[in-house]
Amino acid sequence: MNVSDVMMIFFIQFANTEDKQEFSKYPTKAGRRSLSRSISQSSTDSYSSAASYTDSSDDETSPRDKAQVNTQGSSDFCVKNIKQAEFGRREIEIAEQDMSALISLRKRAQGEKPLAGAKIVGCTHITAQTAVLIETLVALGAQCRWTACNIYSTQNEVAAALAETGVPVFAWKGESEDDFWWCIDRCVNREGWQANMILDDGGDLTHWVYKKYPSVFKKVRGIVEESVTGVHRLYQLSKAGKLCVPAMNVNDSVTKQKFDNLYCCRESILDGLKRTTDIMFGGKQVVVCGYGEVGKGCCTALKALGAIVCITEIDPICALQACMDGFRVVKLSEVIRQMDVVITCTGNKNVVTREQLDRMKNGCIVCNMGHSNTEIDVASLRSPELTWERVRSQVDHIIWPDGKRVVLLAEVMSLLSLFVMPFVSTSTALAVIELFNAPEGRYKQDVYLLPKKMDEYVASLHLPNFDAHLTELSDEQAKYMGLNKNGPFKPNYYR
Amino acid sequence: MNVSDVMMIFFIQFANTEDKQEFSKYPTKAGRRSLSRSISQSSTDSYSSAASYTDSSDDETSPRDKAQVNTQGSSDFCVKNIKQAEFGRREIEIAEQDMSALISLRKRAQGEKPLAGAKIVGCTHITAQTAVLIETLVALGAQCRWTACNIYSTQNEVAAALAETGVPVFAWKGESEDDFWWCIDRCVNREGWQANMILDDGGDLTHWVYKKYPSVFKKVRGIVEESVTGVHRLYQLSKAGKLCVPAMNVNDSVTKQKFDNLYCCRESILDGLKRTTDIMFGGKQVVVCGYGEVGKGCCTALKALGAIVCITEIDPICALQACMDGFRVVKLSEVIRQMDVVITCTGNKNVVTREQLDRMKNGCIVCNMGHSNTEIDVASLRSPELTWERVRSQVDHIIWPDGKRVVLLAEVMSLLSLFVMPFVSTSTALAVIELFNAPEGRYKQDVYLLPKKMDEYVASLHLPNFDAHLTELSDEQAKYMGLNKNGPFKPNYYR
Amino acid sequence: MNVSDVMMIFFIQFANTEDKQEFSKYPTKAGRRSLSRSISQSSTDSYSSAASYTDSSDDETSPRDKAQVNTQGSSDFCVKNIKQAEFGRREIEIAEQDMSALISLRKRAQGEKPLAGAKIVGCTHITAQTAVLIETLVALGAQCRWTACNIYSTQNEVAAALAETGVPVFAWKGESEDDFWWCIDRCVNREGWQANMILDDGGDLTHWVYKKYPSVFKKVRGIVEESVTGVHRLYQLSKAGKLCVPAMNVNDSVTKQKFDNLYCCRESILDGLKRTTDIMFGGKQVVVCGYGEVGKGCCTALKALGAIVCITEIDPICALQACMDGFRVVKLSEVIRQMDVVITCTGNKNVVTREQLDRMKNGCIVCNMGHSNTEIDVASLRSPELTWERVRSQVDHIIWPDGKRVVLLAEVMSLLSLFVMPFVSTSTALAVIELFNAPEGRYKQDVYLLPKKMDEYVASLHLPNFDAHLTELSDEQAKYMGLNKNGPFKPNYYR
Amino acid sequence: MNVSDVMMIFFIQFANTEDKQEFSKYPTKAGRRSLSRSISQSSTDSYSSAASYTDSSDDETSPRDKAQVNTQGSSDFCVKNIKQAEFGRREIEIAEQDMSALISLRKRAQGEKPLAGAKIVGCTHITAQTAVLIETLVALGAQCRWTACNIYSTQNEVAAALAETGVPVFAWKGESEDDFWWCIDRCVNREGWQANMILDDGGDLTHWVYKKYPSVFKKVRGIVEESVTGVHRLYQLSKAGKLCVPAMNVNDSVTKQKFDNLYCCRESILDGLKRTTDIMFGGKQVVVCGYGEVGKGCCTALKALGAIVCITEIDPICALQACMDGFRVVKLSEVIRQMDVVITCTGNKNVVTREQLDRMKNGCIVCNMGHSNTEIDVASLRSPELTWERVRSQVDHIIWPDGKRVVLLAEVMSLLSLFVMPFVSTSTALAVIELFNAPEGRYKQDVYLLPKKMDEYVASLHLPNFDAHLTELSDEQAKYMGLNKNGPFKPNYYR
Repeated sequence: MNVSDVMMIFFIQFANTEDKQEFSKYPTKAGRRSLSRSISQSSTDSYSSAASYTDSSDDETSPRDKAQVNTQGSSDFCVKNIKQAEFGRREIEIAEQDMSALISLRKRAQGEKPLAGAKIVGCTHITAQTAVLIETLVALGAQCRWTACNIYSTQNEVAAALAETGVPVFAWKGESEDDFWWCIDRCVNREGWQANMILDDGGDLTHWVYKKYPSVFKKVRGIVEESVTGVHRLYQLSKAGKLCVPAMNVNDSVTKQKFDNLYCCRESILDGLKRTTDIMFGGKQVVVCGYGEVGKGCCTALKALGAIVCITEIDPICALQACMDGFRVVKLSEVIRQMDVVITCTGNKNVVTREQLDRMKNGCIVCNMGHSNTEIDVASLRSPELTWERVRSQVDHIIWPDGKRVVLLAEVMSLLSLFVMPFVSTSTALAVIELFNAPEGRYKQDVYLLPKKMDEYVASLHLPNFDAHLTELSDEQAKYMGLNKNGPFKPNYYR
Repeated sequence: MNVSDVMMIFFIQFANTEDKQEFSKYPTKAGRRSLSRSISQSSTDSYSSAASYTDSSDDETSPRDKAQVNTQGSSDFCVKNIKQAEFGRREIEIAEQDMSALISLRKRAQGEKPLAGAKIVGCTHITAQTAVLIETLVALGAQCRWTACNIYSTQNEVAAALAETGVPVFAWKGESEDDFWWCIDRCVNREGWQANMILDDGGDLTHWVYKKYPSVFKKVRGIVEESVTGVHRLYQLSKAGKLCVPAMNVNDSVTKQKFDNLYCCRESILDGLKRTTDIMFGGKQVVVCGYGEVGKGCCTALKALGAIVCITEIDPICALQACMDGFRVVKLSEVIRQMDVVITCTGNKNVVTREQLDRMKNGCIVCNMGHSNTEIDVASLRSPELTWERVRSQVDHIIWPDGKRVVLLAEVMSLLSLFVMPFVSTSTALAVIELFNAPEGRYKQDVYLLPKKMDEYVASLHLPNFDAHLTELSDEQAKYMGLNKNGPFKPNYYR
Repeated sequence: MNVSDVMMIFFIQFANTEDKQEFSKYPTKAGRRSLSRSISQSSTDSYSSAASYTDSSDDETSPRDKAQVNTQGSSDFCVKNIKQAEFGRREIEIAEQDMSALISLRKRAQGEKPLAGAKIVGCTHITAQTAVLIETLVALGAQCRWTACNIYSTQNEVAAALAETGVPVFAWKGESEDDFWWCIDRCVNREGWQANMILDDGGDLTHWVYKKYPSVFKKVRGIVEESVTGVHRLYQLSKAGKLCVPAMNVNDSVTKQKFDNLYCCRESILDGLKRTTDIMFGGKQVVVCGYGEVGKGCCTALKALGAIVCITEIDPICALQACMDGFRVVKLSEVIRQMDVVITCTGNKNVVTREQLDRMKNGCIVCNMGHSNTEIDVASLRSPELTWERVRSQVDHIIWPDGKRVVLLAEVMSLLSLFVMPFVSTSTALAVIELFNAPEGRYKQDVYLLPKKMDEYVASLHLPNFDAHLTELSDEQAKYMGLNKNGPFKPNYYR
Repeated sequence: MNVSDVMMIFFIQFANTEDKQEFSKYPTKAGRRSLSRSISQSSTDSYSSAASYTDSSDDETSPRDKAQVNTQGSSDFCVKNIKQAEFGRREIEIAEQDMSALISLRKRAQGEKPLAGAKIVGCTHITAQTAVLIETLVALGAQCRWTACNIYSTQNEVAAALAETGVPVFAWKGESEDDFWWCIDRCVNREGWQANMILDDGGDLTHWVYKKYPSVFKKVRGIVEESVTGVHRLYQLSKAGKLCVPAMNVNDSVTKQKFDNLYCCRESILDGLKRTTDIMFGGKQVVVCGYGEVGKGCCTALKALGAIVCITEIDPICALQACMDGFRVVKLSEVIRQMDVVITCTGNKNVVTREQLDRMKNGCIVCNMGHSNTEIDVASLRSPELTWERVRSQVDHIIWPDGKRVVLLAEVMSLLSLFVMPFVSTSTALAVIELFNAPEGRYKQDVYLLPKKMDEYVASLHLPNFDAHLTELSDEQAKYMGLNKNGPFKPNYYR
């Protein structure tokens, strides 16, 4: 059975409203958490630290004040510099190498154009990886307009490359807060064009549409949301009876939780620390706060390269896993003086306090791998007795009166980890296809998890990349196991 | 907060019928599978291979024909040799070293005697580990009668030690099928004594009570079941409307799935192979069939000791995890000729076929780590052209006409893995306490999963053993996360 | 080029006295150490703890007092029970599985019979593995007489199997000191037979011949010595000008140091601890004293199974390696209270003192992986306030007045590690062949290391077992590297 | 005993000409190899690919044509842009964090000024790490003049920072071959200043002095050489009787071989591949050519992050180590079609041939981790049917007529690995101190290895950085082991 067949079966099954496999409506642990990112605060933060990661251009003119036109003659976009398109194209091509699942989906489905008629307004990080997603949606028939969900994370050259191919993109690295909302507005508010799908990462776009253009929801078939924060907002809307279209929670898909969080963090923690600090890992003492999937990924990688890792946890199950995996479970205060590196990945706030920062040794690196920038009490470091010195892009040295330096990576790591998330994009694309094509009535005004079958299909799309050969159940074995030969193989509640 | 406080909170919360945290009723993947162990078949099997693992005694008299009396003058038991009690006591003491969570539970609760009045009939493997469980139940106030769930697995000296302390035990290594049911019957059918709790591993005891003594269920407050097979049977009973008491599914608890399966198999695969075959792992080519928790445990350990491991899978999610963990995903037939070791842990049947056995190279070791003995098509090897040679206890060489030998470990590995399962016992004890003390009406005639809070409590009981220090949420953090400071920290459906 | 060709080249090259590649004469670090095993002390030790590891026979008659005859009618041997020969044969066959290099050497060379005329007297551990070595020597043409180098380590059934095939073996498990020397004497002193080669492990045989039968050396062409201790004695003899034949130091061969020490200990530490104590490794705190090859092997394995390992070292280079490998380097006294397991592998004495034993926590396991039994100050535990309890074969509980138990594995681990040493045997066999066939004058009365070429040949004999495909240098590459295409590839001083 | 004491003992011992511990004079395997780097060829190569790694400046004026003055008024230097000094200073400060051993040496010895009077001319990579070395030499009393040993590897900002502090530096990124020799000449040929020590990396400086200023050797007390190539040249000079001063071979020190090669490559392979290609390692098929220390480091890291790694080897000992470590040993041609990544670290030439490049799959990454750029037959790719596309700095896509792309990292990896070599610098500094202070006659006109004691001292300087606590031998233990309590603990020939 080839993948295309699987996909046909998949569409057929989902067209069948009798299908017993319903989407779960329950919010996840993550979803229940109150991670309300204060946009205004983070925007202010960003303003003072908007050093560029990939771009050392000194051009200070705001993109909003530039007249730019792509080679097709369109000026319906706003990026830093449209001339960087060619360089951005190369970056997208490099990204495609590791996103063969999405490319494979693109190739198989572009004949059928399952998104013909879709008008998608999107708000995500704008990286080479998301460009591959956007161009896949376009290849499947969609019209897209796009903006950035974060004022730092845009790869300007990628935005340029997208704009050059005709996707209206409104985003650049180092936006002000005002720019941020201006871009979202330009993205949504286009005369003669009305979105019928929303793809959001963080909930800001959804929020804006709710607030400014509520009538858009009359046409919208659904919202696909990728982030913890955005999903949390959707569940709140749903609980308050204010969710007026179906929404798909991609954040809690297996591909996001088990693959992007665990495996991608395993790689990005090393990459991020190395690029920003040149640290050698061998023999370094590291404490990782939080032993969820992100923490597990970080710990695995650091231990493998010879770091001596201990962890902090609030949850006895995760704590016992850490023990069995060979990590001492400690309280942060017990070990803080000895640590060379402190990494947060709890999703909680003030996990590293000022009092603990005061006790760190000279040269200690403090870095946040979590989604929010609340884990380290950065605000407490903005006090007059401490000196801040920016040593590299988004790397600050905080200097105590006695000369002690702490190396602060408050945001750069979570941004870096964006660049290695090949799995969730495929889930996002499938979620868009599903919501857009679903017969009326299949989805109510509620938040849905991806069904296991879809998770399994996403996984199967990635397998050829690894030359992995799946075994098929014989009829006899399928019967013995009480399973359908084509899956799903996992119970729907598997996470 | 000390553990005792947690426990009080725990009992109080469960007394509260308003508690929102209901027990899940859904069967798990495992539960849905049809793993009906044919007792008669396995008994026959065993008869021809009933060589003793721990006991080289040549005493051929059946225990049923011996008159034995313990030092207290009781003869209400039937074991191989009551004189081995002292040796068995030592084994139990050794086992207690690694079961400090259960000992801790024993110490904390034995003042309250939460099982006073409980009359428990139990049917499990009889090992030093289960002896620690049984003696804990007794310490908490219960009366226990016990029998073995497997005709091979009884440690005779442990059975003797239990019998010596006054626990009526009916079990020995190498029972016949007739012996097996005779023991169960003697266990249940005691004049002047009637069970009010059932603790089962495999469902045979439950089956026997249903068949022979249905009236017992009038007094029984609940069934606690530890195994895949037994749980499956309970869900079938429930579905058929025939389950007449509440049942607790311990098999699908986090402690069983995440700890006993993953971590214990990580250790027992090495131990088992080494004890039976003296194999050196370094450089050996190994294929592991199935990348669930058991498979993950096996692969981790073997890779760590230098084996070159590939896996087979039917489920694309597990297959992709294998890829990301660094294992090639293959079909068994593609690699069978090169393998030094073949390990099954799928839960399925005929995963290794005769045709594949024919193609293995000389000296290949084939071993089953799964719960059932169906994974390797052992029956197909009972053909006249093949010679069986028993080289060690439960280790067979199958010799092909051309002299090729395959080393068959069909059952010994799953038995060996019994000896390292410290986690699930604590869950079992808690499940017994809960069902026995539950106010009427809390549990219906249905199958219940352990609530997450109980899983977390079990984990917390193990932490002191590792000198692990749990962090507590501040009020502010708990509020931010939307969590109670004492947990549960995981959603109820977390597995 | 096939292996046979390599071997021919090898013999030819070594026949060429012009060969530039001389054997090194320098003693190694190990060789310089004064590890003089006091036979009388260890024998006394052993006498009180001579419980059998593999044999639970209650037959108390001394083998010296039994009349035994093998099926060929010979009684020129002395073993525990000649009837165990068949069982021993199976064990030897199992051992052959993992010793394919030696078998391969046996097959290739048995046509040429390079040991025709060799009369070898040997004194080694008598295990299934050494039986494979002995039978290889016989297959190559040698006559062998054998005795045990250790009073505990003989596998009685293997000794029986050897005796049954006609090898005069004098050894059993649990010899007294008097038995030990009696066996050596019977081995050497055979009317009408005089040894011309000595194969020794520990130097006791060599010592006996020097003392009692110095005239034997007139015929002896060389001594092959496998152990640290024996090698040390040979260097002392050489230094004192008393070495009257050439000797080959196999202990410092690459195969022994890099393979048997590192890789075999990696496996045997887990096996040994598990068999004797049933410990689960996950989360256990372990301190390993000494980070040489044995220590590295132990640490790798324990870390891989989830133990939390720290090390002690005297040598800054090894200490820094430990740091880079992710192990904390501590002093034993700093951590002794927290440890679950203490492992010694330093080769030094009194590494674990009574004062440290007093401070260990209840249940702590103390085990010696080193060659000598001096590393733990066991003698200090023979004091009246402490109770010794033997719980399993060679496993003692030492009980303090307050009830604290320490689990002592003083000797069993080093014995267990005997059972996984497949590499050095091949080197030993080659060393015997070389010394026996060397033209006069090639070797003086001195101690020689194996030349690198021989080490490389041993390694190459093992490669087919792993289906490893060696790349050959092109002529151009060989020239560029300044190497001979057939090796040696390592400088002669590589260790 | 503190480190300062160790150092004093060290100087005293070396002042003692009776010391038995002589420096070894034998060349190592590496030293024997003919790795003659053709400067002219590599310079030409570089010219066409001199894209800047750290510097995107468009200033095309040659530094030779600029008039630059530092803030002290000196113009005795030639760097890209002296204004970058402040940024370079930050990079040096960051580097100091991980070079605490050198800093510690600097602090302890700067009172004594052991290099007072030393006039060192140096030719190395000019990175933040080597800047820390140079500034240490200056702090110990030396005058230094410096130039770059590679036309690509200079960090311009670091060169500026050095020049700003008064070290005459002649180096910039992207030199022509003519520039290269011009810089060396300016460095050596300074009126009124004559070097008495040479510190070289690659032998070009030594070569130039031999050729142009042979009289300089009258004053030179010694040459310290860090590289394989340079060491090879020195052994050739020595063999030819042309070496006119003592030379110290730092390349074969334990710190270089065991630490910089093994551990630093373990880190730099991941960093380098990630920075240049964004590859995810999980599940990737990788072949590593060569399983020496560099190969071992690469394999360990890649396996730990989930890559599936196999190796090629010519040496059976290394091949067998690879087997035991869990890597399949293959010939490159057998696996080339399946590989995602090919890494060379053999030190040999044409390890990857054009024929193999032709058979690689689309997207395959080929990278050289070896010292020389000869391992991949890059020249064969300069053929008309193939298109070269530079996608990032020093990353080339080679495009076949059918569209297949191979990603070529011919030089960038070995450059990247420069940035993590903290260990060897300390050895280099000690070698300079030793040669400069050695009494006449201690060293002849020959090439010397670092004595083990010096290696151990270097290691001990690094230990405080890891909070490692060394155990000291008791008198009794030292006697038992036959060791001096202060070391050396390793035999002199340990490598």
